[in-house]
Amino acid sequence: MRFSVSCDIQYDVVEDTTLILNIEPQHGERQEVLDEQFSVSTGGASDSHVVPETGNRYRRLQLSPGQHQISYRAEVETRPLIADPAEVAEVPIAALPFDVITHLSPSRYCQSDKLGRFAWRRFADIVGGHEKVTAICNWIFENVDYLEGSSDVSTSAYDTFTLRAGVCRDFAHLGITFARALGIPARFVSAYALDLAPQDFHALFEAYLGGRWYLFDATRLCPVDGVVRIATGRDAADTAFATYFGQLGGPPKQITVRRLDRQPRGDWTVSAVSLVSS
Amino acid sequence: MRFSVSCDIQYDVVEDTTLILNIEPQHGERQEVLDEQFSVSTGGASDSHVVPETGNRYRRLQLSPGQHQISYRAEVETRPLIADPAEVAEVPIAALPFDVITHLSPSRYCQSDKLGRFAWRRFADIVGGHEKVTAICNWIFENVDYLEGSSDVSTSAYDTFTLRAGVCRDFAHLGITFARALGIPARFVSAYALDLAPQDFHALFEAYLGGRWYLFDATRLCPVDGVVRIATGRDAADTAFATYFGQLGGPPKQITVRRLDRQPRGDWTVSAVSLVSS
Amino acid sequence: MRFSVSCDIQYDVVEDTTLILNIEPQHGERQEVLDEQFSVSTGGASDSHVVPETGNRYRRLQLSPGQHQISYRAEVETRPLIADPAEVAEVPIAALPFDVITHLSPSRYCQSDKLGRFAWRRFADIVGGHEKVTAICNWIFENVDYLEGSSDVSTSAYDTFTLRAGVCRDFAHLGITFARALGIPARFVSAYALDLAPQDFHALFEAYLGGRWYLFDATRLCPVDGVVRIATGRDAADTAFATYFGQLGGPPKQITVRRLDRQPRGDWTVSAVSLVSS
Amino acid sequence: MRFSVSCDIQYDVVEDTTLILNIEPQHGERQEVLDEQFSVSTGGASDSHVVPETGNRYRRLQLSPGQHQISYRAEVETRPLIADPAEVAEVPIAALPFDVITHLSPSRYCQSDKLGRFAWRRFADIVGGHEKVTAICNWIFENVDYLEGSSDVSTSAYDTFTLRAGVCRDFAHLGITFARALGIPARFVSAYALDLAPQDFHALFEAYLGGRWYLFDATRLCPVDGVVRIATGRDAADTAFATYFGQLGGPPKQITVRRLDRQPRGDWTVSAVSLVSS
Repeated sequence: MRFSVSCDIQYDVVEDTTLILNIEPQHGERQEVLDEQFSVSTGGASDSHVVPETGNRYRRLQLSPGQHQISYRAEVETRPLIADPAEVAEVPIAALPFDVITHLSPSRYCQSDKLGRFAWRRFADIVGGHEKVTAICNWIFENVDYLEGSSDVSTSAYDTFTLRAGVCRDFAHLGITFARALGIPARFVSAYALDLAPQDFHALFEAYLGGRWYLFDATRLCPVDGVVRIATGRDAADTAFATYFGQLGGPPKQITVRRLDRQPRGDWTVSAVSLVSS
Repeated sequence: MRFSVSCDIQYDVVEDTTLILNIEPQHGERQEVLDEQFSVSTGGASDSHVVPETGNRYRRLQLSPGQHQISYRAEVETRPLIADPAEVAEVPIAALPFDVITHLSPSRYCQSDKLGRFAWRRFADIVGGHEKVTAICNWIFENVDYLEGSSDVSTSAYDTFTLRAGVCRDFAHLGITFARALGIPARFVSAYALDLAPQDFHALFEAYLGGRWYLFDATRLCPVDGVVRIATGRDAADTAFATYFGQLGGPPKQITVRRLDRQPRGDWTVSAVSLVSS
Repeated sequence: MRFSVSCDIQYDVVEDTTLILNIEPQHGERQEVLDEQFSVSTGGASDSHVVPETGNRYRRLQLSPGQHQISYRAEVETRPLIADPAEVAEVPIAALPFDVITHLSPSRYCQSDKLGRFAWRRFADIVGGHEKVTAICNWIFENVDYLEGSSDVSTSAYDTFTLRAGVCRDFAHLGITFARALGIPARFVSAYALDLAPQDFHALFEAYLGGRWYLFDATRLCPVDGVVRIATGRDAADTAFATYFGQLGGPPKQITVRRLDRQPRGDWTVSAVSLVSS
Repeated sequence: MRFSVSCDIQYDVVEDTTLILNIEPQHGERQEVLDEQFSVSTGGASDSHVVPETGNRYRRLQLSPGQHQISYRAEVETRPLIADPAEVAEVPIAALPFDVITHLSPSRYCQSDKLGRFAWRRFADIVGGHEKVTAICNWIFENVDYLEGSSDVSTSAYDTFTLRAGVCRDFAHLGITFARALGIPARFVSAYALDLAPQDFHALFEAYLGGRWYLFDATRLCPVDGVVRIATGRDAADTAFATYFGQLGGPPKQITVRRLDRQPRGDWTVSAVSLVSS
C-alpha cells in the first residue's frame, strides 16, 4: 500500500528552545520511505538519530525566539505481512528473545502489575495468541467510551480501567497492560493512520506473537493495515511526537494521510497484520 | 577495589516455572568480573544473555517441581573513575547523546511529569550538575524516613514523596524522578553493596553528568565506591533480580559482600564516582 | 434473634494515650441491648457519647503507661424488619430526606465520582431497588477475590475495583461506591457477625431504599440477619472500632459472637432485611 | 460588617432534573441574614431544609426541560468574634466535644492518613494552636502555586501536595488535611467573599481551636473577616453549591459580593476570626 503523509507545525518560540521531533516514519523491510522532505522555515542547526534497536527516528532542533514553520511530507510504501490469526500463537516465556522480554515490564502508563487479577480472570482461558489479544481489544472497545477530553497527559491504564473513558493513547495503554499482565510482550506504536476525523497522529499497539510484532487497535478507528508506523516504545512516554526544553506555543499541528495506490481499500481486515520483519 | 560477592537462593517450585535471574554483575572497563561461578543444584536447561546497550546479564532457567538451590559467587575488581564534583557539570539537552535522552522520560515508578513543579522550585537554582544531584540526595535523606515495611512493590516516587517513608528502591526512585524533572537523565542501578545490615541487594541511581553516568545514593547506607553494579534500567521494573512465570516459593535469599583488598576502606567518599566508561 | 457478643482487647500503653472506642452496639427499636458490661482493668477516667443522628456510641478513655485490659460483653436482641425484595424500590432523588442525601457524596474510601461510568453501564438497567443493590453485591462477589492481606488501611474502592481483591471493608466500600454512583444513598456498617472464621469485627453496608436503610453484604460470609450493628458512617474512616492518640501496642483483640435463642438459624435469608426503624 | 451578595444562574434543562442548591448563607448569632430573596423564573416545586448540626441550607428544585433563571440576593450582617491568635490554643483530644472529633477523620479530598509524616515533621513543634494553623497556611501559600485550570473536580490534597498547584478548594483541602493529621479538627467552608477577581464562590476552612471554629484561608485572596459563610462540610464533596440529577447546561453563574457599611475595610486582619458561636 502506498501512502502520502504530511505534518505541518508552527512554533512560536519565546526563548531559546531545544526541540526533539519524532514524526518521521521508520524505515524497514515492510515499510519503505520512498521519498521525504523535512524543512524548517528558519533553517537552523539540527541533528538526527535512528535508534538501532527500534528504528525510531529523532530530529533535534535548536530554535531561537520567533516563529518557525516545520514541515514534513513523505511517500511511504507498506508491505504488511498478513497472517491467519488462528495460526499466530503465543510464545512461551522460555522461548521469548531476551530483548523482547523487557516489554513484559510495567511502565509509566501501563501498570500491568496491578491489573493482573482481572486480566487472568477475563482472558486467560482464551486459546490462541492473536485471538487472545483480539479479545482484549474487543473488551476495551465494548467497555471503554472513546471520548475526547476525558483524559489528559497523566492518565494511565489504571485510571482508564476505572474511569472507562479515554482516547486512542488510553486504549493502547490498556491493551498493552492487559497483554503484559498475561505474559504477552506488548509495546506502544505511534503512527500516521487513514480516516481519522479530525486527522491527527494515532496510537495503537503491538503484541509479540508467533515470533514477530503484530499490530492491534482497540479503537476500531482505522484498519491496522491502514497505518504508517512512526515509533515504538513502552508507552506514550517514549513516543511523544514532540518534546521541548524551553518555552514555545503555537496553533494545532496539521496532519494529512492519504492512500495513493488506486485500488480501493476494500474490506476492513480481519487478518493478523505485521509491519516489522522480526 | 576488590570484592567477593555471593547470592544463594532456594526455590521450592510447585509447577513448571520459567525463572529469569539478573544477579550477575556487569562486565566492563571499570568493573571486571575476575572469577565467577553459577550453579543450580538440579542442573537443568539455562540460557543467558547480555544486553548490548546496558550490559545487563540475564539468565533464564526452566525449573521443574521440587527444590532448587541456586548459587552464585564472584570476585570483582572495580576501578572507579573519581572526579571532583565541582567539575562535573550538567549536559545541555542540545548536547545529550540520543540514547541517553530516553532517561528523561517518566517510568512506572518515577513520575517525573508530576513532580516537576516542586523540583524546579527547590533545586533549579543550584549551580553545578553533581552538586544539584547531591542536593537532591540530601533533601531525600533529610525528608524521607528509611523504614523497612513502609512501602511495597507497587510504591512509586509519587507515593514516597507524599508518604515520606521508604526503602532503598524508593529513595532511588525519588532521586531519579527529581533529576529527570530537572532535565538530568537518570537511571536505576541494582547492586551488591558493602555494609548493609541485613545484607541484601541494594538500589541506587545514576545521573548523566559531564558526559558519563555518575553514581548517587540518597540512603547514605553505603559509600558509592563500595558497590558492584548488577543492572541498570529505567526503574525497579527493569532490574528485578528474579522474575518468574509459574509458581514457586522459598526462604529469603542470602547475600554476602566482602572487601578483599587489604587497605581499609578509608573515609566516606565525597568525590564524584563513576563505574562506567562512557 | 438473640446474640451474645464480646470483645476483649489488651493495650500495652507506652505513653499517655487518649483512646476512643466504638465497639458497643447501637440501641434502637429493632436492636435492643438487653444487658451489657464494659470494664477497664485499670479503672481510669472515661466519658461516653451517643451521636443523635446515627446512634453510634463512643467511649473515650485516658490511658496511662502500662497494661490495660478492656472487656465488653453484651446480650442483644434484634428484631429485623423482613421485606420482600421485589417491593423495596428506589427512592427518587426528589423524595429523599435531606439528611439521607449526604450519603450520595463520595468519601475517603468510596470515590463514587470516579466509578459512575462503569456503574451506569453495568447496573442502571436493572429494575427494582433491592434487586439493583443485590446485583451490585453479586457482581462484587463474582469479580473480587476475598483475600486476607491483599489490602491495607489506605485501600479505597478505586483500588479494589482495579486490583480485584480485598477483605470485608473493601467489599463494603465498593458496594457503597456503586450504589452512590447510581443515585442510591449508601453507608458503611461495622458489626458483630455470626460465623466469621477467624471471628473478628465485620463490615457491611446499608442502602437507602423504600424509605429505610437495608443491609447488604457482598462477602457472603454471614447472613445479613446474623449481625449486630455497631456503627454507621460514610465509610471505614468514620467507624474505626478504636482510634488512639498517643502510643500503644498489644496482641490481637478477641471477639466472640454467639446465637442465644434456641431455634436453628435456618436457611440463608433471601429477604430484604433492615435493622433500623426509619 | 454588612454585605450584599447575589448569585444568578441560568440552567438550560434538557430532561426532567432534580437540582439541589446550597447557595444561601447560614443563619446564626454571628452571621445574620437580614433580608433575602430567592426566585426561579419558571416557578415550580421546591422544598428546603436546614441541617440542624451544621446550619447548611439546601433548596431542592424540580426543573422541567427549558430555560430557568435562578436568582438569589441577600443582605447579611456579620459580627465576627475577634481574638488574639496567641490566646487561641489547641484543644487536647481528651477535651474535644464528640461531635467535633469526626472532623479528624480523612475524607474524599483530604487524606490526612497519608500526609501525617510530613505534617508532624514540619509543623508539630510550633507552639500555639492558631499559630500552628497559620503556619500551615503560610506553608501552603509559599509552596503551592495558585493556578486556574491546574486542578479539577477529582483533585485531592494528596495530588495537590505533589503537584504543588491548585485553586481555592485545593488550598482549603490541603490545609484541612495537615490540620487533621496533627490532631486539629478541620472542616471545609464555602462562602461569598470580597474582592475575588473574577468574582466567584470561595472556599476556605475552619479549624477547631480554643473551643470554637476559627476561619483560615491559605490563598490570601480575601481577608477572613470579609466572608459570608454558606456551608460547612468535611470537604468539597459536602458543600457543592449545586448538585443535579438529570441533564442540564448553561452559561457561567454570576456572583456579586459588596461591602455595604461605610467604613473602609481597613487593614488586612491578623486577628483570629470566628463566625460561629460555639
